[in-house]
Amino acid sequence: MRTPVDLLIHGVGSLVGLHELPNRPRAGAELGRLEELPRAAVAVRGGRVVEAGPEAELERRYQPARRHDARGAVAIPGFVDAHTHPIFAGTREGEYERRLKGATYVEIAREGGGILSSVRGVRAADEDELASLVRRRLDRFLALGTTAVECKSGYGLSLVDELKSLRALRRAAAGHPLHLETTLLGAHEIPPEHRAERERYVDIVCGEMIPAVAAERLASYCDVFCEAHVFTLAESRRVLEAGRAHGLRPRLHADQLSALGGAELAAELGAVSADHLDHVSERGIQALRAAGTIPVLLPGVGHFLRLKADAPARRLIDAGLPVAIATDMNPGSCYSFSMPMMIHLACQRMGLEPAEALVAATLNGAFAAGCGETTGSLHPGKRCDLLLLDVASWRHLAYEFGRSPVTHVFAAGELVFERAEPRSHLPSPA
Amino acid sequence: MRTPVDLLIHGVGSLVGLHELPNRPRAGAELGRLEELPRAAVAVRGGRVVEAGPEAELERRYQPARRHDARGAVAIPGFVDAHTHPIFAGTREGEYERRLKGATYVEIAREGGGILSSVRGVRAADEDELASLVRRRLDRFLALGTTAVECKSGYGLSLVDELKSLRALRRAAAGHPLHLETTLLGAHEIPPEHRAERERYVDIVCGEMIPAVAAERLASYCDVFCEAHVFTLAESRRVLEAGRAHGLRPRLHADQLSALGGAELAAELGAVSADHLDHVSERGIQALRAAGTIPVLLPGVGHFLRLKADAPARRLIDAGLPVAIATDMNPGSCYSFSMPMMIHLACQRMGLEPAEALVAATLNGAFAAGCGETTGSLHPGKRCDLLLLDVASWRHLAYEFGRSPVTHVFAAGELVFERAEPRSHLPSPA
Repeated sequence: MRTPVDLLIHGVGSLVGLHELPNRPRAGAELGRLEELPRAAVAVRGGRVVEAGPEAELERRYQPARRHDARGAVAIPGFVDAHTHPIFAGTREGEYERRLKGATYVEIAREGGGILSSVRGVRAADEDELASLVRRRLDRFLALGTTAVECKSGYGLSLVDELKSLRALRRAAAGHPLHLETTLLGAHEIPPEHRAERERYVDIVCGEMIPAVAAERLASYCDVFCEAHVFTLAESRRVLEAGRAHGLRPRLHADQLSALGGAELAAELGAVSADHLDHVSERGIQALRAAGTIPVLLPGVGHFLRLKADAPARRLIDAGLPVAIATDMNPGSCYSFSMPMMIHLACQRMGLEPAEALVAATLNGAFAAGCGETTGSLHPGKRCDLLLLDVASWRHLAYEFGRSPVTHVFAAGELVFERAEPRSHLPSPA
Repeated sequence: MRTPVDLLIHGVGSLVGLHELPNRPRAGAELGRLEELPRAAVAVRGGRVVEAGPEAELERRYQPARRHDARGAVAIPGFVDAHTHPIFAGTREGEYERRLKGATYVEIAREGGGILSSVRGVRAADEDELASLVRRRLDRFLALGTTAVECKSGYGLSLVDELKSLRALRRAAAGHPLHLETTLLGAHEIPPEHRAERERYVDIVCGEMIPAVAAERLASYCDVFCEAHVFTLAESRRVLEAGRAHGLRPRLHADQLSALGGAELAAELGAVSADHLDHVSERGIQALRAAGTIPVLLPGVGHFLRLKADAPARRLIDAGLPVAIATDMNPGSCYSFSMPMMIHLACQRMGLEPAEALVAATLNGAFAAGCGETTGSLHPGKRCDLLLLDVASWRHLAYEFGRSPVTHVFAAGELVFERAEPRSHLPSPA
């Protein structure tokens, strides 16, 4: 008797399911360890993985209602993008062009550009417009193979505009196959109207935004841009503790521009992730390790801003930390939706090995985003979030750049994207 | 009476057709000059542009047999990739990973890797296999918006293997919508069997390959990798002159690794293009200008090889040269098919302005490839090679990275690629 299942994805030429070790963030020697299984299949029921393994065995064991022939393709788990800022109106290509000519990110911010320019856009937009813009962005993530994404607010910077942002995100995501983890980032910047009395703004974040967002269940996490010119360590602590008191788990933009001690704070508060970490201290690294806080590396930012140095990825890896990589998709410091691009850049710029980068972009990304129990690998019981690729090997995720190799995206066992091929040959004459 | 045409592409939100100035390579102030036309349309007959202009006027003037609604999209000419090496078997991700760990390109070549590893692959493959591999690569170019491409042989390095390569390319391209310009690059490297008597190999290229390729009309151009460790200036001259005597127009891999005087030689021989130019001398720049030889910049190579410096693009531009940009798609020093990526990298790494990069990737690329009279812009009479983009502005070609914004590709007036969108929303309940 074969066990009935909904779907059998068969004919997989090479499967990298990341399900051979127990389901946990991978670090140390495990980070770069990938078992490739030739001639594989994946059985799916109720949107979840029943088993991923050798095709011949699964064909014997399961009776599928539907079949999908992978035709020899490489299969990997869907990407999990653990750090994005997709709720904005208006893009910032003008600033980008100014930076190409030498203006710095901080200079542009001081002149009212940067985050504040996106804040003006979000405040001027209504919830409908925002939802429609965000929905297009979720589609972009999905078509590039991202099946779960962490999304932050943070371009509203007032109670009504942060609520509007998170409601727009919720509306955009309704029925969307992408799995979302949502973060309140009310403390992304001090808004112009509170520049003279910044404590008042921290009061609003802690006393109004966090309770309202928690009451409406609009987010599960709370984040702060902890940096000398933005929120101090003490302010960051206040915000994250207020969030925690309302059930929002902490994350932190930590040590991006200077060694402020953000990693130490993130660890102390038991943050899910500590992100950026360009200037993390040795003490910060040890603290993250002890706390189990996942470092999220954002190689697209250094690329986009043309920085000379990035976060010390190898030091983090050598310290035994389960690094994740993410896009930081946002209109100012990294306008990219592509996890394949981030895998390439993590290898190019940060010295990750391709296998490490793949784990960092899937399984470790899922734990950093907060959904490691439900996606990021093909462990039985997880959502069947799976990609088929048109390349000879998963190694091409690092090797090729500027093109997505993703031909099919399965989210929770449903085929939600199938790439079109060019009509490249004229019909044969009759 | 309205004039009958085959097709009207209407509803273009913003047209950058590059057809406002006379049809010639753009340099100096013209290089960065882009006229954007809102609410535009393009009339097509027999695969060629009849007129590109304001929608209201074209609607009054033409009677189309078919219509394509661009729905407000941005439209630009198809990309022309003026430098690629797509005829190989086997990829070189292993070498890429060695380089990430510190091995240099020259070290890998010395150990028998590099070009020679691709030569082993091509020699072992038959023409059928090669044609099928090349055809998939042509499809990749096309789906990313490249509608014309210059393709070089150069991984055969024997009479039979170079002929096999070019025949495989011809077969792959038969009926394919991509416009091809084909180049014999027999002088890409000295093959192992001729290392001890390199002159003998130059004899073979000049006395056997060139005449055979010309007789079979397998290529229109002849190219040489002119470099200290490959072909000397004198050898390069011999090969290009032999090519010219058989009707093959010269091109040159010039001054990539050292200031050998390649640009000067290319100019002296009236080459169509001089490519790479990382170490071009001031004299070389002036010679290119006087000769009308187009400099082809390859920003993906510096990126992929993680070089500190690239070709001195701004010096070339300031000297009044009509620079082009191209991918150099090849398995060793730039594994990318994407012209949008090269536009981004030309801005990031070489200081091109986005408008300059767009001209360099289309109109100037077409003149560098040798097809400036027939594609690269929407001048009346040219092939209607046109792209629709899903972005707010053509500026996003530089600003966004890692995703292709190309939703529709028209080649010679036919819709040959239409991007699939994700099935991103569950059907509404009945």
